Amino acid sequence: MEKTKVAIIGLGTVGSGVARLLLDFGDRTARHAGRTLWLEKAVVRDLEKARDCDLPEGILTDQLSEVVDNPEIKVVAQLIGGLEPARTIMLQLLESGKDVVTANKALLAEHGPEIFDRARELGRSVAFEASVAGGIPIIANIGQCLSANQIQSLHGILNGTSNFILSKMHEDGSAYDEVVAEAQRLGYAEADPAMDVDGTDAAQKLAILAHLGFGARVDWDDIPRSGIDTLETADIRYAEEMGYKIKLLAVAQLVDEGLELHVSPTLVKAGQPLAEVGGPFNAIRVDADAVGELLFYGPGAGQMPTASAVVADMIDTAVGRTGITFSTLELWSNRQARVAPADYAHACGRFYLRVTVDDSPGVLALITQALGDQDISIASVLQHEPAGNGQPVPLVIMTHETTAGAAGKACDTMSQLDCVKADPVRMWVRD
Amino acid sequence: MEKTKVAIIGLGTVGSGVARLLLDFGDRTARHAGRTLWLEKAVVRDLEKARDCDLPEGILTDQLSEVVDNPEIKVVAQLIGGLEPARTIMLQLLESGKDVVTANKALLAEHGPEIFDRARELGRSVAFEASVAGGIPIIANIGQCLSANQIQSLHGILNGTSNFILSKMHEDGSAYDEVVAEAQRLGYAEADPAMDVDGTDAAQKLAILAHLGFGARVDWDDIPRSGIDTLETADIRYAEEMGYKIKLLAVAQLVDEGLELHVSPTLVKAGQPLAEVGGPFNAIRVDADAVGELLFYGPGAGQMPTASAVVADMIDTAVGRTGITFSTLELWSNRQARVAPADYAHACGRFYLRVTVDDSPGVLALITQALGDQDISIASVLQHEPAGNGQPVPLVIMTHETTAGAAGKACDTMSQLDCVKADPVRMWVRD
Repeated sequence: MEKTKVAIIGLGTVGSGVARLLLDFGDRTARHAGRTLWLEKAVVRDLEKARDCDLPEGILTDQLSEVVDNPEIKVVAQLIGGLEPARTIMLQLLESGKDVVTANKALLAEHGPEIFDRARELGRSVAFEASVAGGIPIIANIGQCLSANQIQSLHGILNGTSNFILSKMHEDGSAYDEVVAEAQRLGYAEADPAMDVDGTDAAQKLAILAHLGFGARVDWDDIPRSGIDTLETADIRYAEEMGYKIKLLAVAQLVDEGLELHVSPTLVKAGQPLAEVGGPFNAIRVDADAVGELLFYGPGAGQMPTASAVVADMIDTAVGRTGITFSTLELWSNRQARVAPADYAHACGRFYLRVTVDDSPGVLALITQALGDQDISIASVLQHEPAGNGQPVPLVIMTHETTAGAAGKACDTMSQLDCVKADPVRMWVRD
Repeated sequence: MEKTKVAIIGLGTVGSGVARLLLDFGDRTARHAGRTLWLEKAVVRDLEKARDCDLPEGILTDQLSEVVDNPEIKVVAQLIGGLEPARTIMLQLLESGKDVVTANKALLAEHGPEIFDRARELGRSVAFEASVAGGIPIIANIGQCLSANQIQSLHGILNGTSNFILSKMHEDGSAYDEVVAEAQRLGYAEADPAMDVDGTDAAQKLAILAHLGFGARVDWDDIPRSGIDTLETADIRYAEEMGYKIKLLAVAQLVDEGLELHVSPTLVKAGQPLAEVGGPFNAIRVDADAVGELLFYGPGAGQMPTASAVVADMIDTAVGRTGITFSTLELWSNRQARVAPADYAHACGRFYLRVTVDDSPGVLALITQALGDQDISIASVLQHEPAGNGQPVPLVIMTHETTAGAAGKACDTMSQLDCVKADPVRMWVRD
């Protein structure tokens, strides 16, 4: 049987999983590839470090040159996180004639144009299924399976850590900090979970999907985003009271003006498929003009789900499918963007507002005035009986359809009122 | 730009949708294919029939020879239903050097080995994304995206008509016949819905997935199946009372003995993703060893969803991806099956039994005896206060885990009891 020699750079969690799939299940990959994927080298920084996989002798090395200088190695899984040295190694691999597979979404979100351009110039390919939504094959589905469609919107739960935390807050009524600590204990959150909970991770993934699905060219850092780190238990309770669940949604939506993009905690009506995605799972709802509504659900992270995506890419690359897809899709090319980002201020929808106010006469009139000045009409108001001890009380308002700009201005106005005791909490509502 | 000439055989609902995508959205397909997909011919039986799409002059013909004898036409969407002349035309197209795309699951389920073998001999390919689950790209996902996995089970809602009927019965409490009439009015059911509601359609699709996902070789007609046509409103009501929804599930599950396959109405615990799939939608839950649990949800039928899958296949075929996949996967080849069908009698699970019995003393003892003789233990019994007019009463039993064989034998024994007034209704339970 024909043999394609492959290598792995980086034997962390995902790299070890990839090595195990290649070494322990070679018959399986051979069956799907019509050839053996032969693990020739695995490059690590520290040869002495304990690893999660047993490698036959001669594979482990700390010399990148053993891959770069070996022309027999055709496909390389580059599984180093962060920007450097990942970027430099990526370019070295391409220059030396390798087709590359990666799971590094931050690298693509930051240096995609440079890497993809260079790969094209060199006649090489970059596969990146594992960079978005872990084990869910969303890149192949959007880039290949939905080719006959104009995608109209994507609504994604793209960060498993945030979804685990939100699900737990809903289930147990626990406070944010408590749940974060639990997520860290269970391995669902990093020691510093900032990038996961502040929307950065989801925005980087959304930028990749926006390129792929809409031909947009966006800098992830320009995507308006808010995270779940400012949520309070009270918001969870109010959402439930009104029949919603809070999810951190990454949204890309085609409108007349262009492509609306944002990452925001959102009240999703209970019973909607996205509302019911629990734990560390990811899901992406795709609305497209020919096919209609699709939903993809699965593990968004973890060793073996991510390794599953990496090895599928290695097979696709070895057999030649990736090369075809990569050259036709022209991702991050200099070709003109097909759609420009739309002004976030014009994004339409309903909002949940929680305003902490003095328990005194006339307050509701001032708040509704601030909304009325922006032409925002109120769908419902929730105010529970105050404790009566002079403490500020939360006033929860669900608006009718308005724009992000108007809602933002109304909140700014409210913030300046004497009777308002903290910046209003504002979330999108999706019915 | 390079041009690949394509043709359509059959301009029914799906064929017209395919023509519209090719003609009205040529820029889109060109962008994904890196070449123009040029609709050269559309072959129909009756030139005079009104159609759902406007074709430029010179495309419509009633002569298959205009496709077969034109060597410039490379890719053909064969969209005629039924077995003949679909089979003969399929073979003619392959013989004349065309790569073929089809949506005809009955043809593949019946004549797959012949068609696929011939295509392989001729160095041609057959793509069939649209044959299972309409707009959901389940064929690509199983055949390509999950290549690094051993799939362990598939649980599919594969028949949209049945799912529409079941959802309506749950929502409205209407009787089966009433809902079928409504489904026919809305276009969700054929004038003769037998193949949809008796499990035939789902079994044919399951046979295709079993080939693709497990390397099994099964005749669809050997798959044990029961449909929803014998369900009563009472079953829906009892299921709900116990927190379940009834779904027609197509199941393929790897067990020690081989591959368990069946199509059966099943009580699925409410809140599970599959239980919440409503209306004419389809969904497939895939459990695989590396990735874990995935769910694919979307429209299982309809003009444009199916056309979306057909055109994606045409693009994949034109660019060469299908050729690679088709030759490596060796579907329906003479290569030895990787797994044999397991004996259905040994399939394990819980059961819902509804037994119509005399309202008289000692009856429950006889029923439980029939179960006990098969080592089936009872998880719960539901019997409402009888009307007291001597009418037979329904006795609903949920069993603990047992086998399909034991449950079948117990039901046979019950059927022969004087106190049992009709054959017991038996459904799988999935918690």
